[in-house]
Amino acid sequence: MTQKPRILIINDDGIHAPGLKHLWNAVADIGDVSIIAPASEKSGVGLSITIYSPLHVEPVVWEKTTPAWKVTGTPADCVRLALSVILKEKPDLIVSGINKGSNAGRTTFFSGTVGGVIEGVLRGIPGVAFSCEDFQNPDYAQTEKHISQIVKHLLEHPTTKGTFLNINFPNTKEFKGFKLARQGRGYWIEDPDAREHPDGYTYYWLGGQWGHHEEAEESDVKLLSEGYVTAVPIHVEEMTDHTFLNSRKHFFEGLFSP
Amino acid sequence: MTQKPRILIINDDGIHAPGLKHLWNAVADIGDVSIIAPASEKSGVGLSITIYSPLHVEPVVWEKTTPAWKVTGTPADCVRLALSVILKEKPDLIVSGINKGSNAGRTTFFSGTVGGVIEGVLRGIPGVAFSCEDFQNPDYAQTEKHISQIVKHLLEHPTTKGTFLNINFPNTKEFKGFKLARQGRGYWIEDPDAREHPDGYTYYWLGGQWGHHEEAEESDVKLLSEGYVTAVPIHVEEMTDHTFLNSRKHFFEGLFSP
Repeated sequence: MTQKPRILIINDDGIHAPGLKHLWNAVADIGDVSIIAPASEKSGVGLSITIYSPLHVEPVVWEKTTPAWKVTGTPADCVRLALSVILKEKPDLIVSGINKGSNAGRTTFFSGTVGGVIEGVLRGIPGVAFSCEDFQNPDYAQTEKHISQIVKHLLEHPTTKGTFLNINFPNTKEFKGFKLARQGRGYWIEDPDAREHPDGYTYYWLGGQWGHHEEAEESDVKLLSEGYVTAVPIHVEEMTDHTFLNSRKHFFEGLFSP
Repeated sequence: MTQKPRILIINDDGIHAPGLKHLWNAVADIGDVSIIAPASEKSGVGLSITIYSPLHVEPVVWEKTTPAWKVTGTPADCVRLALSVILKEKPDLIVSGINKGSNAGRTTFFSGTVGGVIEGVLRGIPGVAFSCEDFQNPDYAQTEKHISQIVKHLLEHPTTKGTFLNINFPNTKEFKGFKLARQGRGYWIEDPDAREHPDGYTYYWLGGQWGHHEEAEESDVKLLSEGYVTAVPIHVEEMTDHTFLNSRKHFFEGLFSP
């Protein structure tokens, strides 16, 4: 490439999250990098967008004069404002993370880290989400050189239209290797904690625990637990269940007349 | 069936939304109905869950002694609390809506109406989302008898595992008919409105406008615009892009060694 590729960095842990800094370390020399991240932590917001509050955008000073902004919204808000208001040119790749905690399995719908990437993919911008399985004390530094290699590869060989990569780093001292994997079945489920309000009624913290499910051999959840870095290509362009469509078409269309 | 089927009604427009009442009208006589809805409007929240605020659950008086609760969270929070705290037995079907405004095309990821249904589907509970295209003055009453028929059908012939139905009613005086359709490409995009804050800086309302895309013949967006009620079977159980997985496996796995 004669011109440096344009990379937009986002996350859901917020502009001050350590994982964001490590993601920047990994890609700062690869392209023309911009950072647009939530002003505060926005975990679990998926593709949520902010409709009923105004959004504030504020520049943030970053190293090596990388342009950076914080937005009082979600990762999807960041991508929407990036493309419509903040950035002069469309990015070639959106990289998201590094998230504190796993986004493997079927957690892709709740994850803000992944949600921001999907928002870009639906607009034709390739993307990749990075997460560390370790929620307590993630070793982000260990991931940096691997992220550089993956991002370089994706810039040279972009994902196909409507597909992004969801990458998770295992909670192990040394990675066993790297696997392209199938989306597993595990996901975060609630673990509600009921407490008594000073006024006497019960309120709940939703909480979260990892929901275990039977996993296929090639599942990212399984391979992650075995110590592999996993990358799942996830397609979001069209999710029609064609088997259902074809088998029930006539039945449904005769269900009622106008 | 000897026992009445258990139906859980949810929405994203909130417990006081007229669409919720009309959805109840449609299904009240079909099964044992419970209502669990957000205490305030939660449009655009997708599968968002509330992690950093406590959730309050309060019973609401409803007609015909239908048990009803309002929750200070999102539709996905409602489903999570329904299954873990509020309901004694798992519902047979989750019905969501009737939403004010279209959820056709690729808006499924942002829609709270659809998000709550997906939350149930990921836990093995079939679901169906209902929306009216008309955002200004939706004619919910016109939809009631059709909803009854669809819900009865789905109770007798549930969707396959991991699939739900996303149903939209067109903005026309009389429906042309009913079509099982493919997920279209249109979606809500931002239409940012920049304003000056009293303190002198710029803030933004994200806004929303319908993003038009080229649509296939069988697309729900196209059929809806022609006056058909559209039902898209959407599969969310696993979204791996197997073509990408198979074609890049060896390349990716050799990308780096540990």
